[in-house]
Amino acid sequence: MGMIGGSQEAFIGAVHRRGSQLDGEIELVCGAFSSSAEKSKATGEALYLPENRVYGSYEEMILKEKELPEGERMDFVSIVTPNHVHFPAAKMALENGFHVVCDKPATLNLAEAKELKKIIEKSGLIFALTHNYTAYPMVKEAKHLVDSGQLGEIRKIIVEYPQGWLIDLVEATGQKQAAWRTDPARCGAAGAIGDIGTHCENLIEYITGLHIKELCADLTIFVEGRMLDDDGNILIHYDNGAKGILHCSQICNGEENDFNFRIYGSKAGITWHQMEPNTMVFRTRDEGARIIRTAVGQLSPAANAHTRQPAGHPEGYVETFANIYRNFAFALRARWEGKAQDPLYDFPGIDEGIMGMAFIENVVRSAQDNTNKWTKFEL
Amino acid sequence: MGMIGGSQEAFIGAVHRRGSQLDGEIELVCGAFSSSAEKSKATGEALYLPENRVYGSYEEMILKEKELPEGERMDFVSIVTPNHVHFPAAKMALENGFHVVCDKPATLNLAEAKELKKIIEKSGLIFALTHNYTAYPMVKEAKHLVDSGQLGEIRKIIVEYPQGWLIDLVEATGQKQAAWRTDPARCGAAGAIGDIGTHCENLIEYITGLHIKELCADLTIFVEGRMLDDDGNILIHYDNGAKGILHCSQICNGEENDFNFRIYGSKAGITWHQMEPNTMVFRTRDEGARIIRTAVGQLSPAANAHTRQPAGHPEGYVETFANIYRNFAFALRARWEGKAQDPLYDFPGIDEGIMGMAFIENVVRSAQDNTNKWTKFEL
Amino acid sequence: MGMIGGSQEAFIGAVHRRGSQLDGEIELVCGAFSSSAEKSKATGEALYLPENRVYGSYEEMILKEKELPEGERMDFVSIVTPNHVHFPAAKMALENGFHVVCDKPATLNLAEAKELKKIIEKSGLIFALTHNYTAYPMVKEAKHLVDSGQLGEIRKIIVEYPQGWLIDLVEATGQKQAAWRTDPARCGAAGAIGDIGTHCENLIEYITGLHIKELCADLTIFVEGRMLDDDGNILIHYDNGAKGILHCSQICNGEENDFNFRIYGSKAGITWHQMEPNTMVFRTRDEGARIIRTAVGQLSPAANAHTRQPAGHPEGYVETFANIYRNFAFALRARWEGKAQDPLYDFPGIDEGIMGMAFIENVVRSAQDNTNKWTKFEL
Amino acid sequence: MGMIGGSQEAFIGAVHRRGSQLDGEIELVCGAFSSSAEKSKATGEALYLPENRVYGSYEEMILKEKELPEGERMDFVSIVTPNHVHFPAAKMALENGFHVVCDKPATLNLAEAKELKKIIEKSGLIFALTHNYTAYPMVKEAKHLVDSGQLGEIRKIIVEYPQGWLIDLVEATGQKQAAWRTDPARCGAAGAIGDIGTHCENLIEYITGLHIKELCADLTIFVEGRMLDDDGNILIHYDNGAKGILHCSQICNGEENDFNFRIYGSKAGITWHQMEPNTMVFRTRDEGARIIRTAVGQLSPAANAHTRQPAGHPEGYVETFANIYRNFAFALRARWEGKAQDPLYDFPGIDEGIMGMAFIENVVRSAQDNTNKWTKFEL
Repeated sequence: MGMIGGSQEAFIGAVHRRGSQLDGEIELVCGAFSSSAEKSKATGEALYLPENRVYGSYEEMILKEKELPEGERMDFVSIVTPNHVHFPAAKMALENGFHVVCDKPATLNLAEAKELKKIIEKSGLIFALTHNYTAYPMVKEAKHLVDSGQLGEIRKIIVEYPQGWLIDLVEATGQKQAAWRTDPARCGAAGAIGDIGTHCENLIEYITGLHIKELCADLTIFVEGRMLDDDGNILIHYDNGAKGILHCSQICNGEENDFNFRIYGSKAGITWHQMEPNTMVFRTRDEGARIIRTAVGQLSPAANAHTRQPAGHPEGYVETFANIYRNFAFALRARWEGKAQDPLYDFPGIDEGIMGMAFIENVVRSAQDNTNKWTKFEL
Repeated sequence: MGMIGGSQEAFIGAVHRRGSQLDGEIELVCGAFSSSAEKSKATGEALYLPENRVYGSYEEMILKEKELPEGERMDFVSIVTPNHVHFPAAKMALENGFHVVCDKPATLNLAEAKELKKIIEKSGLIFALTHNYTAYPMVKEAKHLVDSGQLGEIRKIIVEYPQGWLIDLVEATGQKQAAWRTDPARCGAAGAIGDIGTHCENLIEYITGLHIKELCADLTIFVEGRMLDDDGNILIHYDNGAKGILHCSQICNGEENDFNFRIYGSKAGITWHQMEPNTMVFRTRDEGARIIRTAVGQLSPAANAHTRQPAGHPEGYVETFANIYRNFAFALRARWEGKAQDPLYDFPGIDEGIMGMAFIENVVRSAQDNTNKWTKFEL
Repeated sequence: MGMIGGSQEAFIGAVHRRGSQLDGEIELVCGAFSSSAEKSKATGEALYLPENRVYGSYEEMILKEKELPEGERMDFVSIVTPNHVHFPAAKMALENGFHVVCDKPATLNLAEAKELKKIIEKSGLIFALTHNYTAYPMVKEAKHLVDSGQLGEIRKIIVEYPQGWLIDLVEATGQKQAAWRTDPARCGAAGAIGDIGTHCENLIEYITGLHIKELCADLTIFVEGRMLDDDGNILIHYDNGAKGILHCSQICNGEENDFNFRIYGSKAGITWHQMEPNTMVFRTRDEGARIIRTAVGQLSPAANAHTRQPAGHPEGYVETFANIYRNFAFALRARWEGKAQDPLYDFPGIDEGIMGMAFIENVVRSAQDNTNKWTKFEL
Repeated sequence: MGMIGGSQEAFIGAVHRRGSQLDGEIELVCGAFSSSAEKSKATGEALYLPENRVYGSYEEMILKEKELPEGERMDFVSIVTPNHVHFPAAKMALENGFHVVCDKPATLNLAEAKELKKIIEKSGLIFALTHNYTAYPMVKEAKHLVDSGQLGEIRKIIVEYPQGWLIDLVEATGQKQAAWRTDPARCGAAGAIGDIGTHCENLIEYITGLHIKELCADLTIFVEGRMLDDDGNILIHYDNGAKGILHCSQICNGEENDFNFRIYGSKAGITWHQMEPNTMVFRTRDEGARIIRTAVGQLSPAANAHTRQPAGHPEGYVETFANIYRNFAFALRARWEGKAQDPLYDFPGIDEGIMGMAFIENVVRSAQDNTNKWTKFEL
């Protein structure tokens, strides 16, 4: 693996490194960790990489690595930069024969995402998108419960992602995370909606398989001086007739990262909170509630395949990245061994990326339209 | 107190009786418990009322009681019938000199509510509306936290009321509670919105003092054969610029009565769940979260004035009715003693009733309008 | 009902009044609310009692009420004084033909409790002891789960009652609740063990039917100047071979009233916390956990018979007293109607009182013995 | 790092590998993964190790690695075998110049642990014991709260470790984890007490610095055919006068791994549950409760130094091992650079190991003594 972005001061780079290292399936062999060659070098040193495998730019890395003998050169790149670099970096990697793991959202806008899909298809290479939250064991179990009909017909979906870290103009203080996430040039057309609203969209689609037919969005910038939405509330009509509420925010004072869902069907309802990810509650009117827990009782093969510890030994955020990286490694190995990919070890790809970018654009379009109630979801 | 409605098989009648009896301030002296004279009689007997104080109709009760000497006759009526009887019963009671406690919503529609306000004003009598949930100690504390500026400027409000008891056509089974609550003739223009959505509206207005400027509503009937909405999702713009989400449902499978709110301001956020009513969480980004508990530490006078037990001795639903009845009794006594009503012992009245009916009508109007996004809130 | 003790400043008197009034089955007709005639009078006035039914002492009340005609005079006394008055007041009431409801613990010591049993038997009257916590619906359900074999053979029992209100010498500040509860003359041989440890003993015996065979106790006075234990930790051997831990404390800083149990059998385990009394968790190794909730799903007749509200409408502490008083009223009525008492509507009596007093004496004896490990439980 | 034990079917080996790899500070270069050379080889292959670095026994590994040039040979061994191998493997590694990380408990008995201490001291090498639970950020914070006096004088300590996985004779089914953990020859003198009771002892000593003065233990074998205790309940007197309850069990049906503590001092109390490790509650009688959360607000340097993610991104079990391995790596690097070890990055060593073994022996001695109540803690 060669990493693009993820210098020492970045948040998500370290997460990707830890996630990719956890299972011993992947080795970090090189990196272009920053647009600053100096920072890249310092990060490479801290990571014990040999000097000649730390590059000043991703372009340099791709070209130089390509020249190395197979077995020595990196097999794939991991792109963990701000959003605006995702597309050019992925494009160049793919066009030079490297598989890609890319942080979400896929690209800066929908057009890029569609273009990227074409490039991937043309390359015949593997592309993984780290919509990590779908890799929790309890999310796998939720999907299983829906797929196996235990919820009945889905009627109502509430998906929430309240955070509170941007209650004031943090981006003006030089905090790097806040700075690029609130800058349209590096982040795209939406703030909270792009950063965390896309996780909401992805999670629900992953679990239920439902698509958004139309939506009605209300986006707000609460903090003066901010350039992008820090709060979004959306009513949703799903294609099966289910009704949805999706809201996300960065100004819910005191909330940490309370991503959660409630999905109600004609037979049962389920509830899950990312901050206590190993617990899900399954409810019915007539028989009360069951607590479903990671590694307890008879869970689905999918849940078990993404669980590492016995019951009561908490798993967390880093394991979600590890699950995607491990599954990606399995896919690579299968390809090398001429085998089919095992669907049990799934991971998000460019289709999820396109859907996420479409979600952002449809939401922004709806939010800007203060007369029409319902905005048809266009892909 | 004379009770109108509330026969043995009713749910809310017993709640009102227990709430009114809890503090020993109020005595049930007579009743017209049912439109069936027989049922009324049976209920009166079960309640140990003398036969001559159990009436076959509320009209009879009001007229007969009026003729009894002061001190013996009832001082006020408690109206606990289905909604369509609220207005005529309250009107007749007031016009014959009896104060009124009335279950919510105030009337069958907004016009009746406005008319009732005029009748109350003309009568000079006291009218209490049992929007009971605002009488929880932690709701009083929430109001105190907002009023004293500890939340800063309110930015976002999420108020939810998911229930799951009507996931199928319960009203077709003869279940009395379901039958009238889903019948427009007895219940009004809305189902879930009228029954529980009004509690959401009332709770937020009570705590924050904010008014709805405009809203965008999506109502659904999920269960085939049902006549009124069993699910409602609403986006709200408050008059101070705050954004809101209000949703309520009777088809959230497995949910009991999970009325709850989250209110976020520039300084802090608070969260409360009715099903664990003695706990509220107060959160800030920079100093973490505090657990606020009934009877623990230094609470507001309003919270303490509505608390009966020491810390850790749980108080519940019946105490909310008791608080309203006791405060109503205090108001009556103050009047008899020529004193002013103590604002510490507040209770909802006709203004809250009008607001609730207006809420229903505005929501229904918005839901029926599938082109205009925002419906101005009209009173 | 005539009340003995329970002046305005007392805590438990008001609880008994509210509990007894909640269901409209019992009327407070007289009282001797304090050893001070003045305080008694003031309390009587505040309760709207006629002056001639407010007495200066319980002796006076019993004698005067006895002379009133049947139907007018009180049917029973409710004794809510400090512990040292329980025995003489109950004795006199019984010997004068009045049934008795008495706060726990039954008496000042075991000898009195045994003597009281004889007096009750001789009188043929009904005696109820308000070990209120066993009257929660979820405790009834727990008993049902054990009785119906769903836990299998009981192996381990953990029962806890941490409080924190006596972390300093509150009794020296004039706080009335603290003063008598820490005074051996009014309270008996134990502090925390008598006040709350007895609830632990009673709860477990009620649910499991198991008896303590031997125990090993460690009592401590943590606050200097205090006369009785404010902390107690006990290892228990039950008669069926189960092992137990029972601990209670008044110096667990910040704990409110966190009475709770965990009972583990060969087939399943259950957990309950008094502070969230409407929830119990039922766990098995192989099938995970179920959440059992008041009024949700198919509960036992006993749980349902002690539930007043539909699901999600929280019931609390006052209802536990109401359950005992209502069941006592049912027993009285059954007697008057010549019927047998319905075992569904049970309540604790003198046998539970004797067991509680024996528990105190055995624990104190064990605590004073620092050489022998196990103290045989003697009745 | 060279690993001793930890073949593919073992539980704890994978945990150590993941923990050691997470931060990229340590590389697994060789292993003797099983006493079966075949299993060792298969594990080495699965871990992508070169064939010549996978050994058939730890003796072979130590001797062969010793001959490799510095920089290529392993720097330290990680011992993750059943308990009876800890001592001989650690001894041989140390005597051949390799640092050691060892799973807990340190050895098979106290004598071995004391002997091991001498060997370590003689070698001058670094020895880490993976009492991993003390490496949670919230445990670091708890220690900080105690050390900085925010709890006042410690009065009462409750530490619990209920599990339910051994409710029946799992060891008879061939389950490897159960087999050696219930076998005195491989596990030592105690079952539950050795496996999880030692975590209880270690956690409390780490946080409070208190030592056990005397104890009174009750151990039980509930499952017929089992050779070692599966349940233990202990009363404790600490050296400062605090009272303690320590209990652990493997037969608490349905419990997963609910390791938890409550520590009460004169000023405040704290509560923590391992299964939700990122939350701790800090309580006081007079000011209520605060929720302390990983990465939220102003935490101690020690808590922050052991936290990897921002608020609300759950960290779990694997990070506790990672913390110990990383801190061990820091200690190694400090030594290589001739610097002092930074006390912020602490980890347990042989002293904690000796204390754990002494705990086991004292508890077993007390449990076997059914006459004397208190057993002096002997080291």
